[in-house]
Order: sequence, then C-alpha cells, then structure tokens
Amino acid sequence: MTQIKELESKVQELVMLLEASKQLNSNLEMGEVLQSILLQMVQVVGAEAGTLWVVDQERKMIRVEAAYGPSSSNILNIELAIDEGIVGKVIGSGEAQLIENVAIHPNWANRVDHSSGFVTKSMITVPLTVKGRVIGALQLLNKKNIAFFSEQDISLAVALANQSALALHNSQMYDELQRMLLSMIRTLAKVLDARDPYTAGHSERVAKYSLWIAEALGYDTPTCEELYKAALLHDIGKIGIPDDILRKPDRLTNDEYDAIKRHTIIGADILSNIEPKGAMVHAIQIAMSHHERLNGSGYPHGLIGEDIPFFARIVGVADAFDAMTTARSYSKGASFASGVEELLRCKDTLFDSRVVDAFAGILQGCDFKIDQYEAHQGRGYHL
Amino acid sequence: MTQIKELESKVQELVMLLEASKQLNSNLEMGEVLQSILLQMVQVVGAEAGTLWVVDQERKMIRVEAAYGPSSSNILNIELAIDEGIVGKVIGSGEAQLIENVAIHPNWANRVDHSSGFVTKSMITVPLTVKGRVIGALQLLNKKNIAFFSEQDISLAVALANQSALALHNSQMYDELQRMLLSMIRTLAKVLDARDPYTAGHSERVAKYSLWIAEALGYDTPTCEELYKAALLHDIGKIGIPDDILRKPDRLTNDEYDAIKRHTIIGADILSNIEPKGAMVHAIQIAMSHHERLNGSGYPHGLIGEDIPFFARIVGVADAFDAMTTARSYSKGASFASGVEELLRCKDTLFDSRVVDAFAGILQGCDFKIDQYEAHQGRGYHL
Repeated sequence: MTQIKELESKVQELVMLLEASKQLNSNLEMGEVLQSILLQMVQVVGAEAGTLWVVDQERKMIRVEAAYGPSSSNILNIELAIDEGIVGKVIGSGEAQLIENVAIHPNWANRVDHSSGFVTKSMITVPLTVKGRVIGALQLLNKKNIAFFSEQDISLAVALANQSALALHNSQMYDELQRMLLSMIRTLAKVLDARDPYTAGHSERVAKYSLWIAEALGYDTPTCEELYKAALLHDIGKIGIPDDILRKPDRLTNDEYDAIKRHTIIGADILSNIEPKGAMVHAIQIAMSHHERLNGSGYPHGLIGEDIPFFARIVGVADAFDAMTTARSYSKGASFASGVEELLRCKDTLFDSRVVDAFAGILQGCDFKIDQYEAHQGRGYHL
Repeated sequence: MTQIKELESKVQELVMLLEASKQLNSNLEMGEVLQSILLQMVQVVGAEAGTLWVVDQERKMIRVEAAYGPSSSNILNIELAIDEGIVGKVIGSGEAQLIENVAIHPNWANRVDHSSGFVTKSMITVPLTVKGRVIGALQLLNKKNIAFFSEQDISLAVALANQSALALHNSQMYDELQRMLLSMIRTLAKVLDARDPYTAGHSERVAKYSLWIAEALGYDTPTCEELYKAALLHDIGKIGIPDDILRKPDRLTNDEYDAIKRHTIIGADILSNIEPKGAMVHAIQIAMSHHERLNGSGYPHGLIGEDIPFFARIVGVADAFDAMTTARSYSKGASFASGVEELLRCKDTLFDSRVVDAFAGILQGCDFKIDQYEAHQGRGYHL
C-alpha cells in the first residue's frame, strides 16, 4: 500500500513536471520565459517566494531577472558579483544546495533580504546548466505552510531546472538574434542618413515618433516594435539616389526632384527582396507610401485617403514633422510648437486626423520634454 | 499487484516523455529539431518507421521534412496537397488517428508507399498543434515486432506530439529570424554593389568563394556560414565613399586612392555598432583587413603575415580573384584560369599559400564548372 502511495505521488510529480516543461517551451520571448520558469518552479516545489538569477558573463555579474512573492519588486534587477553569496557558490560549483536555516549560513548575502524586507528561513538554490555551462540559478525561499524544504523538494527542483535551463538558453539565442537584427537595421539607417549632413539621425527620430504615435493609438507592443523597425527603413531607397542630387544645396530642377521622389519606389523594391515576405509587408508599404497625402497631392502614386496604408500615414506625419523641425540647407528648422501647429493646420487635407491628434497630444504633454529634446538632438534611444 | 504494475509502467512512460521533452528542446536549429522530434517519437512509441510532415501554409502543401526507417531517403521531401491522404485529414481535423490496417483505408495515399517500397500495415497519425494551429503531423508506421499499434500507443504519441509541436514552432520562429537576417545582409550587399556598375554581384561572389575556401579547409558548417555572412559585408565601408570617387572611370589621384582605402576602416567602424559585439568579431576583422597582404604591402595598416586575421586572408584572396576576373572600367576581366595563375604567382608574397592552394584546387575540380559559371554571372546562390 505504501508502494502504491509512493508510485502515485511519483506519477503526480512527473505529470506536473511534464506540464511545466510544456509551459516553459511555449514561448521564446525572454520576458515571458523568465516569468514562466519562475512561476512553474515556485508552484511545482511549493515555495513562498523565488528569484531567478541570470549570469552576465561579460560583466562577471549575476542579476535578478524575475522575482516572485512578497516585496518581489524590490529585488528585481539586484546585482551580485558572479561568485557572491550562496547563489554565487552554486553558480561556481554547478551543484544544487539546500539550506535548512539561512540565517546562520556563512555565505548568506543578507543585503538581498535587507532590500526586500522578506525573511528567508529555508532555501533551495539550483543552477541552470546547459551543455555543462551554468547560465543562471533559481532560488526558492520558504516551503509554503511548513517553512522548511525537504530533500524531495530539491530533487524536484533539479529536475525542473534542467528543463528550465534549456528554455532560458533557447530564449537567449532568440533574443540575441532579434537584437542583432534590430541593431543592424539601426546601423544601416544611421549610415544612410549620414550621407546627407542635414539628415543625420533623421530615420531614428522618425521611427521614435512613429512608435510614440502607435503607442498613443493603443497598438500592442509587438505591433509597435514592428512599426519602429519598419519606420527606421522608410528612406532606405535613398541609397539609390546619386550624391550630387541628394546633397545638392540649391533648388532642385524638376528632373532632380523626380529622381528624389523615386526613393519611395526604390525602397519598396529593396525591401521586397527580404525574406520572409510576410514579415516585411508593413516596411514595404511605409517605404512606398510615406510621402502620400490624404488629398492625393503626395507621391509616388497620388493615393487618396483610406487608400494610403495606415502605418504609412503614421510615418508620413512623423517624417513631415522631423523635416519641419530640423535644420536643412534652406531653413534653420522650426520649433516643436510651430511644427505641431503646421500639422494641425494640415489635418484632414494632408495628414490623418487621428495620427495628428495623437502626436499633438504627446508633444503637448510636459513629461515628454526631455525625451523630445533628446530626440531632437538625435541621441539617447534604446528601444 | 496489477495496480503497482500499471503505476510502474505509467512512471516509466512519464520518465520517457520527460527525457524526450528535454531532448526536443535542447536545440533551436531546424534540421536537428526535426530529426530529434522524429527519433524521440519513433523510440517512445516503438515504431518501425516514421515520417514528419510540415505544413507549408503559403503553398497549401505538406512536405516530409524528416523520415526514419527503411527506404526513408526515398520519401524525404515528398509533397502532398494540404488535404491529401490520411495525413491531410488529420491536419484538417486536428484529431489523431489510429489505423489498424492501412491497406483497406479509403484515404490512404499509397503513392508514398510506392515511392518508398515500404509496406505500411498499421499507422498512427498525430497532428502537431501550437495554440490551436496545426503546423505539421507525425506518422508512425508498424509497431515494432508486433506490427499493430494499440490505443495506449496513440495516447503516448499525442502526449509527445504536444511537446514536439512547441519545439518545432520555436525552431521555425528562430529559423525565420535567421533567414531574415541573412536576406537583409545579402540585400544590403547587393544594393551597395549596385552603386558602381562594375561591382554588381561582387560581394555575393566574394562571399561564395570564401565559403568554398573555408569548406575546403575543413571548417564546420556554422563557421562557414558565419564567414559567408561576414564576407558579404566586407565592402560595407564603401557606403562612406562619395559617388564621384567610387565611380570615377579615370585613374584616381593619390588623394582619391587614399579615400578609397578608407572603406576598410569605415566598414569596421560601421560593423562595430552592431550588437551583440561577440557575433561581429570576424565581420569587423574582414572589413578592416581584407586588403592587407602577407609582405606588408597592403592597407590600411600594412600588417605582415600571421598578423593578418586568417579569415581576412581568405576573403582577401576571394576579393582579389573576383577583381581580376570581372570586367572593370580599365580591363575586360581575366579568365578564371589566368586568375588562378596570378594567385599562384603571388602565393607567399601577397596571399596565404593554404588559402590559394585550397581555392586553386576547387577551381580546377571539374565538378565546379557550372557553379563557377553561375558565380561568375552573379546569380544562382542559395546558401
């Protein structure tokens, strides 16, 4: 009968682990994976609180990337040296550790408790190991209801830590690739803008304004981020415009102006080479149509009203505003206030009224003044 | 006693599933994930053979992306319409299916057996479903030793299919991002080359030659792919050279030639903006040093021998060869044979002898003639 009980509890434990593993791997986005790892672990082992530490190999530090339990917000982003405290020892040795009474343990870095106000009694610390490399650690604090953990809890934690480490590692690989793609797009935009001294930082500012507008209009984060990246590339077609036209300080001839207008078509054409096609739809529309205007006076196709893709209308407003408010060869650049006035004046004729109203609302909010200033100077962005 | 046996077998099954889930998620590379899913499934359920079908939503087709068992190589890449055969029905309905005797089943698309020569008796087909969307299916053929599957086998297959689907989905997301990054780099290189009519397709050819050389020197696939991507960007610094110098048909003045030489430093500088830094080390070295020569006669730093990073020596040879063998404003371009002769003549003075020997070996091998020709024409690459 005891054997049946034991087997039943083993089955229950394994079912729990299997379900947890499914949850862990149901996403690649770093933030969600971190939360999921911690939550699964706290639930499976039955802890009062938990912290997930991630190793920053370059800086030789470890940082709390997720925290669960009372006063968890106080310990988020706390950093320790890579060999500091109990967690540092576990990361160094790769061995899980159960501490019955933390208070009397020599390695206890009690400044974490100090910061959080939480009183740690019993603690399990398990390393997150992938292919022999420790990439983080999980700390589980105080067994629910009875305060102290058992040996069985630690073996459960180790089993789940193996699954968690893989999920974290996959998410880190994905995150790295995403950051690489973003920084490649930003670098490309920056380099292209730099061909013309008057447009330095232009693409980055337009992308940032577009992002603000989309946020104000209530788009979700993935959509806002996609728009930001797409907006960075709105002028990529200028790569196909010769220097002597692009940088000409004097008035352009009609032929030269026609050549400049072609940057929209060239840009859309360049972007349509990028795989997978599905991911580039908005970027292509934006490159093609950010100079279209509601009343049909824009280029390259003279589209009218709703025929202009909405994201292109957003970037069109951001682009026009930046052109007005930065110095050009022919003007020293209007103030933000007059830029907004001009947008409002052309609402419904040239520019989409929802977009203009959203942008005007942002720029009139005083909280944004410093950001605006930074934006205007073309520095200080971190998406 | 029966209850203990049942519980024991349940524990065994769950342990197997948990271990399988760990294997499934230990990688993000598509090829390895596909193999791993199939292998885990075949082993866990105990099948004689298995096929992993993946849905191609755009083309409304399903394709065998991995196969296990006798004559598996014959069915790899076989395609069916998305609703064809038993697998099409399972993908359409999202419901797993156990067929005791395939031969008499009305939906059996026996042209797959025809192609493989394998005789299917009993078959389990399970959908791979992620967040309600069917992204593929697994077919398990003939229970080992006893030929026919049971209801228990199908429930095991379904449990593992849930884990497999997540692993496949994650791998697809990662793959998509990788393809996007690669096609962005290739598009960028192509667009930059197009600024000068004499260098159209240059970066792509140099990258391909560099890849061949690295393969011949025995580098592993990830390293070869990294070199390919890095080599695509070797001339990115030319973005900073004005049109009138870059496209000048006449002889360059000393000052103009100095400006051209700066593309190496500009390129390294641009690439050092890209995150994460670790991933760009080779690309930066290649951009900086692909014009260095063994005897110190190169630029920008006049590095000597081993001081020139090895990958920059590879790209240096590929770059010099392409410059010799394509038409320029000042020459109609040498034949491949005279290009190789020239490389061999400058071995050990300008070019690394291992690199030159490897490249000469490739170009003299007759199997490469068509590829060479395509390369020379600047088309036909798919990494």
